[in-house]
Amino acid sequence: MKHKRPLILISNDDGLDYPGIKTLITLAREVGDVVVVAPERHQSGMSSAITITTPLRAAKVSDEPGLTVWQVGGTPTDCMKLALDQLLGDRCPHLVLSGINHGYNAGISAIYSGTVGVVLEAALRHLPAVAFSHGAIARHIDFTPCVPHIRHIIAQALAHRDTLRDVCLNVNFPREGACYAGVKITTTALGHWEQEYDHRVDPHGMDYYWLQGRYVSDNPTDDTTDFYWLERGWVTVTPTQVDLTAHHALERIAAALGLNGRQATRAGD
Amino acid sequence: MKHKRPLILISNDDGLDYPGIKTLITLAREVGDVVVVAPERHQSGMSSAITITTPLRAAKVSDEPGLTVWQVGGTPTDCMKLALDQLLGDRCPHLVLSGINHGYNAGISAIYSGTVGVVLEAALRHLPAVAFSHGAIARHIDFTPCVPHIRHIIAQALAHRDTLRDVCLNVNFPREGACYAGVKITTTALGHWEQEYDHRVDPHGMDYYWLQGRYVSDNPTDDTTDFYWLERGWVTVTPTQVDLTAHHALERIAAALGLNGRQATRAGD
Repeated sequence: MKHKRPLILISNDDGLDYPGIKTLITLAREVGDVVVVAPERHQSGMSSAITITTPLRAAKVSDEPGLTVWQVGGTPTDCMKLALDQLLGDRCPHLVLSGINHGYNAGISAIYSGTVGVVLEAALRHLPAVAFSHGAIARHIDFTPCVPHIRHIIAQALAHRDTLRDVCLNVNFPREGACYAGVKITTTALGHWEQEYDHRVDPHGMDYYWLQGRYVSDNPTDDTTDFYWLERGWVTVTPTQVDLTAHHALERIAAALGLNGRQATRAGD
Repeated sequence: MKHKRPLILISNDDGLDYPGIKTLITLAREVGDVVVVAPERHQSGMSSAITITTPLRAAKVSDEPGLTVWQVGGTPTDCMKLALDQLLGDRCPHLVLSGINHGYNAGISAIYSGTVGVVLEAALRHLPAVAFSHGAIARHIDFTPCVPHIRHIIAQALAHRDTLRDVCLNVNFPREGACYAGVKITTTALGHWEQEYDHRVDPHGMDYYWLQGRYVSDNPTDDTTDFYWLERGWVTVTPTQVDLTAHHALERIAAALGLNGRQATRAGD
């Protein structure tokens, strides 16, 4: 009997033309059959956005043994939803991969990231999923130092699928370095951007604003966070989940709203 | 000395024309000075998407004592960022409000929601923030039963701002009911959609896909969740936070990847 290879579903937010997704496809094909469902157009910063008010189109752009490639006229999350509901038919992927993004999705930028949106969509369906991002934002990046780490993480994710049923992985590679110090399990470095817009005036005298910004970490010396270790040359793996509930704050918020613990109050009580 | 009224910043994802935001503006003006910065166009399902590759435009559409209104050609999160970085100048809001959305942002749909995106952006800057959504998706909704609850929550949020420094509130009102049973502090009902697309063929023989879907809860009998109580006529308040880290899974993931706890391994170890 022929050994059945795992099915690996790949998406990203940069589209098919980027070296990042090409590298990921090559490495995934070493161990599995690959279906790629990627956005037709660049979708950076699309978070978990979905297309509601217009319908989606999908085009199968190539189909060869072990590799089928689709383009979808929507967001990264649209790609995942359409793949799992329609394009894959009855097949269910053993693993979902996203990236390799050109640019970090570390720290709070995870919430704006289409690359991370892909793996959140997988995680809420209890499918194992890994997002990869590289700190360089150039179009041409030398992914050579990433390759052994990606191979290892793909192999371990396939071997430990039950461990990834409710948690996806957000992997970031340091911007610089011909080899990396190693791999760390990290937390998200919380913070925000300052001086976020470059305010300009167009030739017609009208204001416009370019997003830019300087990241300010809430706690730059916290040695559990992704940015702390990326700056020191380590590959970071942040276990990531979809539940936004602030479980630690339920009692505190109930008290602030004048509710008796988490019990009911009638309006007007 | 004149008593200084609190500054309340309001946005939504439906745009200025919707009754939901008009109701919220009216109620906020009872207690504070209001600045509205809302998207120019309908932005449902935009999650925490941000505009990166094109610049933003902003237009001040009205300005009267206690109420200034801006429209921004971007996403709900763009509105928040541009308001806080540019449009408000040196002023910092005492409270951020979002909505009232026409349609639930309960359960996992919180991750797709532009209405919730607004308050996540406030929370990562440690600004108190509350998102309001109503289960009806009609344009014309009778918000009368919501009014006393919104007044109460705004008052308590202003009185307990320190409690909301790192947690925002996601409030949902039941679709049906001329009065509500009461208010519950809840968790996010996790789940996913099935049969997500309606596959059609256009007059030219080409496939297209409309997003639709049937929500399947992971645990429909969990009486801590928002959907459980919304279906029973209660207003739900889900404390919500921006950190996607799966803190509970750090050790488990480290073991699955062959890392020694959260310690370092060198590549190839």
